Order: sequence, then structure tokens, then C-alpha cells
Amino acid sequence: MIKFDRVIHNGVVLTINQRFDILQDGVVCVLNGMIDRVERRNQAISEYPAAEYIDASGGIIMPGLINAHTHLPMSLFRGLADDLPQGEWLNRHIFPAEKTYINRETVRIGTLLSCAEMIMAGTTACCDGYFCEDAVAQAFFETGLRGVLAQGVIDFPAPGVPDPEKNVESAADFISAWKNISPLITPSIFCHSPYTCSKKTLVNAKKTADDLGVLFQIHVAETKAEADQMQADKGVSPLQYLDGLGILDRRTLLHHAVWVSNEDMDILAERNVSVVHCPESNMKLASGVAPVPQMIQKSIRVGLGTDGCASNNNLDLFTEMDSAAKLHKAVTKKPTVMDARTVLKMATIDGAKAIGMGDRIGSIEPGKQADIIIIDTRKPHLTPMYHPESHLVYAARGSDVRDVFVSGEPILRQYEFVKMDVHEIIKQAALIGDAVRPMT
Amino acid sequence: MIKFDRVIHNGVVLTINQRFDILQDGVVCVLNGMIDRVERRNQAISEYPAAEYIDASGGIIMPGLINAHTHLPMSLFRGLADDLPQGEWLNRHIFPAEKTYINRETVRIGTLLSCAEMIMAGTTACCDGYFCEDAVAQAFFETGLRGVLAQGVIDFPAPGVPDPEKNVESAADFISAWKNISPLITPSIFCHSPYTCSKKTLVNAKKTADDLGVLFQIHVAETKAEADQMQADKGVSPLQYLDGLGILDRRTLLHHAVWVSNEDMDILAERNVSVVHCPESNMKLASGVAPVPQMIQKSIRVGLGTDGCASNNNLDLFTEMDSAAKLHKAVTKKPTVMDARTVLKMATIDGAKAIGMGDRIGSIEPGKQADIIIIDTRKPHLTPMYHPESHLVYAARGSDVRDVFVSGEPILRQYEFVKMDVHEIIKQAALIGDAVRPMT
Repeated sequence: MIKFDRVIHNGVVLTINQRFDILQDGVVCVLNGMIDRVERRNQAISEYPAAEYIDASGGIIMPGLINAHTHLPMSLFRGLADDLPQGEWLNRHIFPAEKTYINRETVRIGTLLSCAEMIMAGTTACCDGYFCEDAVAQAFFETGLRGVLAQGVIDFPAPGVPDPEKNVESAADFISAWKNISPLITPSIFCHSPYTCSKKTLVNAKKTADDLGVLFQIHVAETKAEADQMQADKGVSPLQYLDGLGILDRRTLLHHAVWVSNEDMDILAERNVSVVHCPESNMKLASGVAPVPQMIQKSIRVGLGTDGCASNNNLDLFTEMDSAAKLHKAVTKKPTVMDARTVLKMATIDGAKAIGMGDRIGSIEPGKQADIIIIDTRKPHLTPMYHPESHLVYAARGSDVRDVFVSGEPILRQYEFVKMDVHEIIKQAALIGDAVRPMT
Repeated sequence: MIKFDRVIHNGVVLTINQRFDILQDGVVCVLNGMIDRVERRNQAISEYPAAEYIDASGGIIMPGLINAHTHLPMSLFRGLADDLPQGEWLNRHIFPAEKTYINRETVRIGTLLSCAEMIMAGTTACCDGYFCEDAVAQAFFETGLRGVLAQGVIDFPAPGVPDPEKNVESAADFISAWKNISPLITPSIFCHSPYTCSKKTLVNAKKTADDLGVLFQIHVAETKAEADQMQADKGVSPLQYLDGLGILDRRTLLHHAVWVSNEDMDILAERNVSVVHCPESNMKLASGVAPVPQMIQKSIRVGLGTDGCASNNNLDLFTEMDSAAKLHKAVTKKPTVMDARTVLKMATIDGAKAIGMGDRIGSIEPGKQADIIIIDTRKPHLTPMYHPESHLVYAARGSDVRDVFVSGEPILRQYEFVKMDVHEIIKQAALIGDAVRPMT
């Protein structure tokens, strides 16, 4: 008889499988990092032989959340500048701060800081893009999280890549270096945008991604100014421009996609491209509201992302789900759009599919990686509980996450980190903060 | 030399005074429940003689948050029904649940449950309206929180008031009974709305409020359907209708006020009426977006409220501040509106003024009641900290509140309740939940 590595029990299991099965008094059996068995308990728990039993204390057992758009090191600049016109925010605050303070060491600390925040808030995987991504990957590797990590490509001198002529080459080197290091780290390439990368750069980067078999990411149609400029310059929408370059396909991930027409969405659906919705960043920067309910109606895969901490200002996907659910109701004036289940799927299985991991993570099903979190519901704001999916979207916060497992390995137990020294990370991040001079 | 009851120190004091002073290494001295002295520490802490020293550990010391619109017992129905058309949600789920399950005992437990949630999230005062408010007040009294508590008035049979002919009389009885019981409880009267109360009821209720010297509250212009119906029936806006009845003045508090014209807002400003903004409830129910930036420009006092838990679904004013700040940026397409300071004032001093307590609470200033909270910033998502006001609005969550004091008395210390038995409350609330049958 099989002896499982871990059996997680005494909770409601939100499988997020195709039928959205919710198992009262569910049991999840983990073997070799994978989910082996999931069911309603139909026998004494001791009849599921295991090296370790994890008692969820009546809480919610669910797949770890997937943050499909991050810039991890930017947590160092959280709250440095807010409530400003976009140009001023970016050009007078964020870009100068990156230029002055971003280096391999600060990237390392910023990444660890963000990972600690994500773990504490139940995020088990993220899809990142930044500069010095090699330093991101090294720090990320220490945390036990799962990630798609991409080296940024831009046609300007950037941290770690002073010569923009070498931007794609540098990204290719990153991919080659990290391709086989860890099953938890999947390299990728991230072109900053259609307006900061030339046609040549975009085409080269996409070709490199295809040649190396990795995900190609890009920010696109985030602001009206961007869309208007593209229309003025090339007579097409940003989406149509990328489509004309042959860049849109199943292995391309578009971040934001706020300013997309009905025709643009038809192109997205036809090309089988994935989108990441970042409602809080789009709200805070006043970028606009992506037509996500229409995208979903057109069967476009949409994941959920926080964006970097300088434009959110947090990495909590629980509050992000809440914002996603509410924003579209307010804007469409329809209280039925973006219901709790739809939003939960965006933050789990749909995000997994968007980042190219739909077969491995995003739901609690046999054969998938055991990326699992436990929500502690013995709290005033989660009692009584009629529908767990409602509580997760509309009432829970990241701070309700008690345990986190990635590939079956515990990285947070009873609110405590298993191997990360969070106090040391906080201390080092605070020291970097002390050196940063906010512009006035 | 005076010996203070408590000295709170070793933190950044966000005074929210007129100048919005932020005191690094601040000291707050409490005597007889009031703030006696506030300053940057200019001597050894032992030179401030005190019976007790509260070390804020480098966190943020700020006024307790004020939730200006609640229906406390409705936490029992959190998540019972979501994502539905408004009529169906209210008529097929919420009203039947209230009719079946609301009684003095469930109101008591629901109130305690909500108070526990509010305390844990740094709310020190709320402005409530519900039925059986006498039972709300009795439970509230046990918690040590400060509240404006109002008996609901509606022209239908209601829990505790089977005969609607007696609705205003019953509210007057509640006010008389609670007028002098506790300095922490201020009674009020709450007419449900212009469409559920007759002209006679509204005028009587307002006269009663004036005679007894209490705040008159009403939901108004919450939905477009309401505004359209009023226009069709009476040829005026809901605001103009109330103005015609002579109901709008300094002692009237309007909840929601979403569908108000420029002319309506001029009336509000002229009459010196206060408004409570409930962004998350308005978003979730797709009611619309109140023109709050314009109201503030017209110097209308606007407080912040969560509304009841059936339409939010939480009482966390930190996430509510975040939503308020972001929603209006998204809708107006201006990233500069509803900046962090404006939103923080809504949740503190402006809310205090709106509920008629601007001279007593809402800021850390000598002579005010010591309603104070401490935010624990030694966490990944609050490190580094460049501007405390930014973190409070865009990154902090209710769960970051470490200590809560009301009139100088501790009600939460180091995340633990001082006198409430939260486990027992959770247990009893869960039992009520077990008995509630969600409609399908």
C-alpha cells in the first residue's frame, strides 16, 4: 500500500477543476511532490497512510494563487511616489530610482522581499519580468516558489545591459543559463512594450523565444496615450501592430491589454494569445479598464496580476481578486459579471494556462503539482461561511493564509516561514530604503 | 508633575490634524481617556511620566478609523448571496433571510461578530443603523467601541417593530433609552430611504431627531432606478425631494448619494449636509460611482463606510480606502484624484465630522478622545516605508493593526482582545450560520 508524503485534511477542498468541485471534509494526498488523490473523506483519516498529516482545522484547502504579472524587485520602491500624473511618476521618480539604486544586490533583496510577501499571501507561482533577472532567479531559487522568470528587453541602456544592441542576446543567455537549473524555475523573455522596442527587436526576441521554446511576454495597450500614438504613427492599434509582426500566438502573453477594440479581441481569440489583467495597477495609474468580461466571453484566457509594487502597491492576490470582481461590476453596471468563481479561476487555473503551465498547476487534481494553500477561516470576518468561493474573493485577505506548499514542500506552516529568514530580509530591505532619497 | 495614564511612543505619529503633521519618533500622552500631549520626542521617554508605556516598535500611531456606514448584524449574512441582479439579491435572499433569522439574539451575536472584525482591523468608531437596535446597542456596549447607533425606520413591518405606524415612536424610545447610558454610545435615527418611508414618516422622523438633538440618517440616491423612479413620480431628484421636505441640514447624514447632479451637490454644500461614501458596496451591487472628487471640491464633508457585510463583504476600512483611492482614478482617468491624504482624512477626521463628532475624535490632537491605533510595519509588504500615508492606503490591511485604544482604554493589545472572547463569538456565529439555509 502506498504511503503518502503528506495528507492534507479536515477542510473544504476547492478543487477548481473543470466542474469546480467543492469537497466538504476533503482529503488531498501528496506523493513525490504531486497530488495523488483528492476526494471527500470516506474513511478514517488514519486509513490514508502518510508520513505527515496536515490538519486544515476546518479551513479552506485550495490551489496556490498565481500572480501572472510581477516586477519583483520593485517592492523596494513601494510608495516612493503615488497619486501623480503618469509621465511625472515614471520619468521623475521610478526611472531615476531604478537607474540609481537597481543593481544585482538590490535586485536580490527586493526579490526576496517580494517572495516573502507573496508566500505570506498564498501565492505559489508568479510570472516575472525585470532587469538583472539572473539575480532575481538566484534569489527566487532560495525561496522554494515556482516562477516564470523573464529577462527584460528594451532599446535603451538598462541595469545589467548597458548596450541595448545586446538586449536580445542577453535575454537568450539568461534563458540558456536557467533552462535546466530547477523544475521550479522556467525562463522566459519579456519585451518591455511596442513603443520601447523596435520592430527588429520585437521580431528577434519572439524568434529567440520560439527557438528556445519559452514564453514571450510584453506590456501592450496599457494606456490610451500608447494606443493613440500607435494609431498616429502606424495607423493601427497596438494589438494589430504586434499581429502584423507575427508575434501573437499561443506562446505569447500580453500584460494589461486595456485599450483593445472588439476587432482586437477577435484577433486575440483567433491567435490563441493569453492576457494578464492587472486591475489595481490600471486603476491606480488611471490607465483605463480592460474589457475583461468581453474577453472571457470570447474565450480568451485571462490571468490575474498585481503588476510591480510601485503601481499597486501590494502583491496580495486576494484583494486583487476583490478589485477585479468589483471594478467590472461598477463599470459595466452589471452586478452579475465577474462572479466569484470566474475571478477565482483567473487567479488559479486560467493564470496557470496563461503562463503555459495549465497542465501542471492551478487546480487540485491528481497528476498536478502539489502547489496548495490552506486558508484559516476561524476568524470573525470569515464566519459563518456559506460559500467558500465568496469568502475568498470578497472577504479574505492574504493574511488569512496559514500554510503554503509548493510541489508538496511546506514553505509556510502555521503562518511561519519554514526556511526563509524574513526578519533578516526586512532588515536588509529597510537599509536599502534608508539610502533611497525620494524626489520632492 | 502630571503622571499620564499611558504614553505611546517609538513610532511615526500620523496626527491627521489641520496641517497633516507627521511626527517621526512621536509621543502621544494619554490622561483620563483623552490626548493630553502630542509631539516629537524631545527628551528621554522616561521624562514623560506614565503608569504604562506602549512601545509602537517603529510602527505607525494614528487615529482609529471611523466606519461611517454599517449595518452590524448583517455580518451573519456575509456571502449568503452574491453576483446577482439587485432585485433578486435583495428580495429573494436578503429580505427573506432577515425576516426568518433576525431577532434580538441573532442581532446580538451579529453585532459582536462585526465589532470583533472592526476592532481587529483598526476601526474605533462606527455609525450604524438596523432593526432591534436596542439589542445592537447592548452588545456594542460590551465591546468598548464608540458608536452612533440608530434605530431603523421603514413603512413596513420590521424585526422588532411589527406595526409600521409605530416606527418613529419606536426610534424615539430607543433614543431616549440610550441617550445617557454611556459616553461611547450616541443614539440616532435612520430612515431607510425616500422610497420606503412616506413623506409623513420622513418629516416626523427628522422632527423627532431635531427635538431629541440627534443625527438623522438616510440612504439616498443609491441606485439609478431609485433616482429615475423619483423623477417619474415627483419630477425631482431624490436629493431635491428631501430638500423640499426640509430634511437637509448640518445634522443630516446621507448614505451613498451616488446619483447626484451638480445642482444636487450645490444643495448639499449649501445645506451643510454630510455624505458617506461606500465605494465597495456601490461597486459590488453595480449601483454606480458617487462623484466624490467633485463633492470634496465643493467642500462637502464626505466620510467613508463599508455598508453592511452582505454587500461588501467585509468591514475592513484599509481595503476600503484602497478601493476609494483607486476607483475614482479609474473612473475619472485622473491618477491625481483621491490621493492618499484625502482618503485617509475621509476615514478619520472627515468621517468624525460627518457623524457629528469632529470635535471629539478623528485626529491625534490635545483635547480629543484617545481613540488610537498602532500599525505594525515590520512586515514585508510595509518595508521600506517612504511615506506612511501611502502605505496605509495602498499596502496595509486591517490585519496589520496591532493595538487599539478607545478613550485611552486598550481593547486590542499585540493582536489579542483585551476583554472580548472572540472564540466564543465565532462559535456562536457559526451556529447561527449552520441554521441559515441559503436559497438556491
